[in-house]
Amino acid sequence: MEMKSKEETAARALPVQDARIYPRGGLDVLSRAEVARLRDASSGGMHELLRRCALAVLTSGSASDDPRAARDLYPDFDIQVAQQDRGVRIDLSNAPAVAFVDGEIIRGISELLFSVVRDLAYMAIELGPEYASDLETSEGITNAVFGVLRNARILQPSEPNLVVCWGGHSISRDEYLYTKQVGYELGLRGLDICTGCGPGAMKGPMKGATIAHAKQRKANTRYIGITEPGIIAAESPNPIVNHLVIMPDIEKRLEAFVRMGHGIIVFPGGVGTAEEILYLLGILLREENKALPFPLILSGPAIAAPYFEQIDRFIRLTLGEQAASRYEIIIGDPVTVARRMTQGIKRVREYRLAHKDSFFFNWSVDIPADYQQPFVPSHEAMEALDLHHGRPAPELAADLRRAFSGIVAGNVKEDGMRRIEEFGPFKIHGDPDMMQALDGLLCAFVEQRRMKISGEYRPCYQVVT
Amino acid sequence: MEMKSKEETAARALPVQDARIYPRGGLDVLSRAEVARLRDASSGGMHELLRRCALAVLTSGSASDDPRAARDLYPDFDIQVAQQDRGVRIDLSNAPAVAFVDGEIIRGISELLFSVVRDLAYMAIELGPEYASDLETSEGITNAVFGVLRNARILQPSEPNLVVCWGGHSISRDEYLYTKQVGYELGLRGLDICTGCGPGAMKGPMKGATIAHAKQRKANTRYIGITEPGIIAAESPNPIVNHLVIMPDIEKRLEAFVRMGHGIIVFPGGVGTAEEILYLLGILLREENKALPFPLILSGPAIAAPYFEQIDRFIRLTLGEQAASRYEIIIGDPVTVARRMTQGIKRVREYRLAHKDSFFFNWSVDIPADYQQPFVPSHEAMEALDLHHGRPAPELAADLRRAFSGIVAGNVKEDGMRRIEEFGPFKIHGDPDMMQALDGLLCAFVEQRRMKISGEYRPCYQVVT
Amino acid sequence: MEMKSKEETAARALPVQDARIYPRGGLDVLSRAEVARLRDASSGGMHELLRRCALAVLTSGSASDDPRAARDLYPDFDIQVAQQDRGVRIDLSNAPAVAFVDGEIIRGISELLFSVVRDLAYMAIELGPEYASDLETSEGITNAVFGVLRNARILQPSEPNLVVCWGGHSISRDEYLYTKQVGYELGLRGLDICTGCGPGAMKGPMKGATIAHAKQRKANTRYIGITEPGIIAAESPNPIVNHLVIMPDIEKRLEAFVRMGHGIIVFPGGVGTAEEILYLLGILLREENKALPFPLILSGPAIAAPYFEQIDRFIRLTLGEQAASRYEIIIGDPVTVARRMTQGIKRVREYRLAHKDSFFFNWSVDIPADYQQPFVPSHEAMEALDLHHGRPAPELAADLRRAFSGIVAGNVKEDGMRRIEEFGPFKIHGDPDMMQALDGLLCAFVEQRRMKISGEYRPCYQVVT
Amino acid sequence: MEMKSKEETAARALPVQDARIYPRGGLDVLSRAEVARLRDASSGGMHELLRRCALAVLTSGSASDDPRAARDLYPDFDIQVAQQDRGVRIDLSNAPAVAFVDGEIIRGISELLFSVVRDLAYMAIELGPEYASDLETSEGITNAVFGVLRNARILQPSEPNLVVCWGGHSISRDEYLYTKQVGYELGLRGLDICTGCGPGAMKGPMKGATIAHAKQRKANTRYIGITEPGIIAAESPNPIVNHLVIMPDIEKRLEAFVRMGHGIIVFPGGVGTAEEILYLLGILLREENKALPFPLILSGPAIAAPYFEQIDRFIRLTLGEQAASRYEIIIGDPVTVARRMTQGIKRVREYRLAHKDSFFFNWSVDIPADYQQPFVPSHEAMEALDLHHGRPAPELAADLRRAFSGIVAGNVKEDGMRRIEEFGPFKIHGDPDMMQALDGLLCAFVEQRRMKISGEYRPCYQVVT
Repeated sequence: MEMKSKEETAARALPVQDARIYPRGGLDVLSRAEVARLRDASSGGMHELLRRCALAVLTSGSASDDPRAARDLYPDFDIQVAQQDRGVRIDLSNAPAVAFVDGEIIRGISELLFSVVRDLAYMAIELGPEYASDLETSEGITNAVFGVLRNARILQPSEPNLVVCWGGHSISRDEYLYTKQVGYELGLRGLDICTGCGPGAMKGPMKGATIAHAKQRKANTRYIGITEPGIIAAESPNPIVNHLVIMPDIEKRLEAFVRMGHGIIVFPGGVGTAEEILYLLGILLREENKALPFPLILSGPAIAAPYFEQIDRFIRLTLGEQAASRYEIIIGDPVTVARRMTQGIKRVREYRLAHKDSFFFNWSVDIPADYQQPFVPSHEAMEALDLHHGRPAPELAADLRRAFSGIVAGNVKEDGMRRIEEFGPFKIHGDPDMMQALDGLLCAFVEQRRMKISGEYRPCYQVVT
Repeated sequence: MEMKSKEETAARALPVQDARIYPRGGLDVLSRAEVARLRDASSGGMHELLRRCALAVLTSGSASDDPRAARDLYPDFDIQVAQQDRGVRIDLSNAPAVAFVDGEIIRGISELLFSVVRDLAYMAIELGPEYASDLETSEGITNAVFGVLRNARILQPSEPNLVVCWGGHSISRDEYLYTKQVGYELGLRGLDICTGCGPGAMKGPMKGATIAHAKQRKANTRYIGITEPGIIAAESPNPIVNHLVIMPDIEKRLEAFVRMGHGIIVFPGGVGTAEEILYLLGILLREENKALPFPLILSGPAIAAPYFEQIDRFIRLTLGEQAASRYEIIIGDPVTVARRMTQGIKRVREYRLAHKDSFFFNWSVDIPADYQQPFVPSHEAMEALDLHHGRPAPELAADLRRAFSGIVAGNVKEDGMRRIEEFGPFKIHGDPDMMQALDGLLCAFVEQRRMKISGEYRPCYQVVT
Repeated sequence: MEMKSKEETAARALPVQDARIYPRGGLDVLSRAEVARLRDASSGGMHELLRRCALAVLTSGSASDDPRAARDLYPDFDIQVAQQDRGVRIDLSNAPAVAFVDGEIIRGISELLFSVVRDLAYMAIELGPEYASDLETSEGITNAVFGVLRNARILQPSEPNLVVCWGGHSISRDEYLYTKQVGYELGLRGLDICTGCGPGAMKGPMKGATIAHAKQRKANTRYIGITEPGIIAAESPNPIVNHLVIMPDIEKRLEAFVRMGHGIIVFPGGVGTAEEILYLLGILLREENKALPFPLILSGPAIAAPYFEQIDRFIRLTLGEQAASRYEIIIGDPVTVARRMTQGIKRVREYRLAHKDSFFFNWSVDIPADYQQPFVPSHEAMEALDLHHGRPAPELAADLRRAFSGIVAGNVKEDGMRRIEEFGPFKIHGDPDMMQALDGLLCAFVEQRRMKISGEYRPCYQVVT
Repeated sequence: MEMKSKEETAARALPVQDARIYPRGGLDVLSRAEVARLRDASSGGMHELLRRCALAVLTSGSASDDPRAARDLYPDFDIQVAQQDRGVRIDLSNAPAVAFVDGEIIRGISELLFSVVRDLAYMAIELGPEYASDLETSEGITNAVFGVLRNARILQPSEPNLVVCWGGHSISRDEYLYTKQVGYELGLRGLDICTGCGPGAMKGPMKGATIAHAKQRKANTRYIGITEPGIIAAESPNPIVNHLVIMPDIEKRLEAFVRMGHGIIVFPGGVGTAEEILYLLGILLREENKALPFPLILSGPAIAAPYFEQIDRFIRLTLGEQAASRYEIIIGDPVTVARRMTQGIKRVREYRLAHKDSFFFNWSVDIPADYQQPFVPSHEAMEALDLHHGRPAPELAADLRRAFSGIVAGNVKEDGMRRIEEFGPFKIHGDPDMMQALDGLLCAFVEQRRMKISGEYRPCYQVVT
């Protein structure tokens, strides 16, 4: 690694430095053609994406300390992938000095940086426009998810022990400490952690597990962070992540969680977390997945009890008792969470053995095509929803998730709010009690400050029965 | 691994047994689609190829002990690649019992078996008909060679230390012992060995190196065998090979040797070995490769001196002194061979560093398209050769190799002999002295019993000046 | 490991359980005679010591959370070392349940437990009464220190990178966080940590280094805790310690720090820390150690500046400017501390190479016999001190440390206070300014709450000029 | 490693060179006192012993190729152990050039060299005169055996898999090849080999196992050679040995074999081998060892059948059928040898588990003091033997072994032959049939050229009934 130290580029900017970095493992055995393609992709349309993701990684663990966005703090940062016959080289200019120690890049950050290049390269080379038709079928999408994960070398034939943790990135101190305690108890029992790789509930379990793994002298610990280009900048990988994967989009990221995790724990979060619960329940309630063991635990400290009670009530009302039987709510008891998860994963192990499914990728779980496609909450799409009792639970769950998503957009997202302003409130077909329950849930989120809106919450839709 | 022991299937056949084998590493992380494709390929057109290669591996190290072909000895042998979601499984029936110890397959043989499946799978999946156009350019072929080798995980970024050893598979005892001594001296100096993976000069250097590596406590030893479907049955991998690669055809195999090896030692051999020398010199004499260091040593014990003298004279006469400056002949001195190779590889290392070429794949060496294409010695093709003094050496070398190849075919290969019988002798355009030298070389090979013909050697061609 | 879960033994006691534990590494290859001797030692006079140390380890990391002593909390705890021909087995009864996860002992704690048995066994077997004469010379004591450390397998031939951190176990939150930050910066630079293995300044640097080592993907991290039987119960090893050594007594523990560490950082602490500074300066000021590089940094956050200023003034007054040139005071700047330490260790490395001293044990540093012997502050011993200007600095430093030790005993230790009560104040021969400075220092400690006395500080001595 | 190349020291001597060697592992963590003691020992009384053993190791694998003794070939060879604070350094002068490659010592030989220093150092430091009393009891001697082996780090807690192979160092080509085949079959089954570390039956099994271990991709292979100062010069360690131990004397060497091996195979040999069989049977026939499983197989190719038949007959006649039930004779069947040994070791494993004996050292086998003491065949000692039917088998076996030893000495050893000349034939008390059988056995050995005497065999004793 060569580098020169630099004066600050501007009075207001933070210290920066230039560096040349050479990869270890994986990216070091590329063909000349692949290196050229990677260089082209990274200097062409993909350049801005690469720059953004790289900056997120280089400010890993420090972003939250400063209110200004990384982009503003390092305005002159740039990254180039340079070709040389023996492989690739990464040239950084005006990179955040916080990623370096005495002029040398921190090795973990260097690894994450190459993960970024590796995954964007895979998207450019293996999932490029010429393979578009492969991504038109459900099976094709699943194969793409598999391909990205295998290329990232995180699919390894080992004993099932991967717990996915979901939850909000900005949770209360008490809730954060609770996620740490749960991670600690999971770690004591030899379990690895996979999260969305940002702060809050995505960091706590990893931090707790780190300490427990050290105590148990566990080698080969995995702290897997799965992200996607749209959120990596906002949710910079926390510094504990030692395997980083950038999935092409939100839906493939969700599928990666479901197919890699041997169980899922949901911590308190915002509306995003609620959507994730509906996504997962919608899948698990399918007839095809009925027999599939899938440990799902909703857990938080005592102060989070109301949060889970509301969600539980909403699910029972809309999707029925059967849906509620798919999860377990445990309040304020990290030891029990870890024990229940351990037992659940044991059943997953037995099921996979019996059904000859792999330990590292859950091929058996059925995820239908409409769960793999993004939902754009236009007025038409919202009016097409069908929120009535009596529909099959998986379909209703899917529509509920979409309704949820649309209403949140109409309330807080620039795009959605503009549409509402322009075309009036959404028209949603649904049973009134169900819609009221939805409203109630959103109000509660606002009250608990889990959903941030300006002013008071006002429904952005009309119920059409 | 499950298996049942079996009575011999027939009085004349050798002991056999059935087995189920599960892979370790590499083949264990396949997608469902890949497993299906592999199963289809192996039960379809590729089945006979797979069966043949598998049998060669299963009789590894024992074939030469028995005059009857493996195919006759194990008439009921079969192999099936079975799908199961967690990966592939190999089902063997009536497999040679020599590959097993107390009912369990020898681990090294199991690894070679999975190498066979891995490489044939790669050919079926990555080099199938739909990629045919990729193989039409020189660069495309080189990429295919790279692809097969990388997929076999033998391209690793480590210090240059790989010596390719060429030479005959049926050489005299003295010559064999000499190859072992050279391998021993190479091994003492930390060098790894790559050969064509059969017996004779392909086994001796590996055996010698094994002992030397043990003495030097070398970890990570590499005994790489590179073969292709047409010869694996005849030249079953010797049991020392710990990395086996099956290239799609002879030309890609030759290219693999040239791009992977950091130096080449040629031991005594038959006409095949002479062809390989012409192939290599043709490449090294190209203007593009002029500056490229490439240690090339021709060596054998005292009794092999005449062999190399003849070859040397022939090369000087046809390709000139410049060609002779590309190699060094060392007789009866293993220590000097190893020292010169070590020095040569040091220069290769420096050159690669200076030119930023990788250590593990020689991208810089220029191999033109016509060296990458098979030569079919029809009467037309032979008449098109141009063997006159004054032509550029690389082109002349290529045509000499082709002439050589055609004449050998006309004398010893079933196919070629039939053509001669049918259409009369080849007509070859060439200078008489050159043609006489060619004849002289072939006569000497016959005398030294390096080329086996029935009856006396008679030229199968007429010189057309 | 077998165990049975147990009801709490008494209403007031904490949950306990029984267990049988088998060792890994080191203790697993003992002779029958050694096992017998170990069993005898541990059931005889050494039993209470073993029980106390084991309990400290089993409550590792939890002791500080509870005001009651471990002994009161686990009144029925017992440990037996059982003989069996294949090695030793440890039988625990009524052991703290906090050391177990779902009935299985935490592996790190199990390792620490075997460290305890290993070191006490070494004391019993190798340093027993029959070797008493070996311990009468300075060289013999140094050999004993070496023997204990080698037997604990922490003397390894690796690059110099071990930083010893001294400081108080009950320091302010700000000071603790500062030690963590320094540990983090040391860890980023690849340095390992060695402390007295308790909480506070002994834990912070390890915790910081853990995070930095993870970021740098450092393998083979060393968090060495060196303790002795008298303090292990009070300063239970923190859970990060992965190498624990129990030295036979305080003086050998100090010598172990000095001979193993490649540099020392002193954080704020109480009187004990001040004594350690005097011990180290006394050694470094010896003529024999004049040329020896030994990085010594006194450091703390801004609020600790007065503490170091007082110590600095005291040293300059008593031992002179030369003594002050042996250390550097750095306030509120963890990065500079780490950089200066890195530079200092580089000089240590060069010196050892030049003088052919080992990297893992500082044979060159001269520690005189009187620094290796305990000081008992009787009235006679105190009156024998000679605290006048003009004495050689090393001798004066030794007497100052003894005076310090005696005065502290007279103020806060039960034993010392009783003596003062009985025989009146100590008589100390010394220059008045030096004695006033000593008084000033102690007053400041009391004010800063670094030394806890009941009521106001009153000198327990008279100056005899 | 520094070195200078050298002209041959004399016309008749072989090439030599000087070198400085630094240890890896084990010897690198010594105290200053230990280094000094080692240097003193190696320059004092132990110097000649060190010189002799070092020369044996440096000519490893080449000694047998030259009729002249190593001592004559390298008359000026010398070795010095130099002190430097960081450990020891070995200075070689006029060392055999065959141990070097391009000026650098072969790493395996360097390791064996440090084994020599390590074991002689242990003898000097831990078994020196001041510990003489420890070696007066049977238990003390066993502890010394344990100590030497542990210090050599070959006592490791792993699964039982160590087969000791005994047999002659100068056996026929057929017999040598047979030992190789047996070693190959043992190796295929994952077994490690321990021998007396010279050529012949001590080398063959290791060589065969090496190939089999490579085929089975076995890591951590152990080829243990156990020797003693009196024979190492004559039986230079073969180059496959990767763990070398020098026991203090013949009896401790025999005890090491018995306590480390999980089974023993006896190949054809000379009188020494016969003595070893009697030694082992004498131990196994003791009441204390009755229940102890101990696989003992006598095996050789067809041509060795008469050898084993004679031994078998002799044992049945003298020690009875019970003794013969302790071993199995297998002729010409390496596969069966390996299978029976595997089964036998399985029983050993179960027995050790049931009796809590260690896997790495057979504490349970009872070896009485008189088996641990050397036997000097004076006329008095020979007359004290009691070779009559009806004595307890273990005692009779011991006396038979002594008689054997004495008679061999009287026939072939300089010392013994001189005594016979001086004092006349030994007087031996014994039953005539037993003595005749003894004579018959010796005659057969002479005929089969397993015992070399000048002229015809003539008994050197008279039977006194």
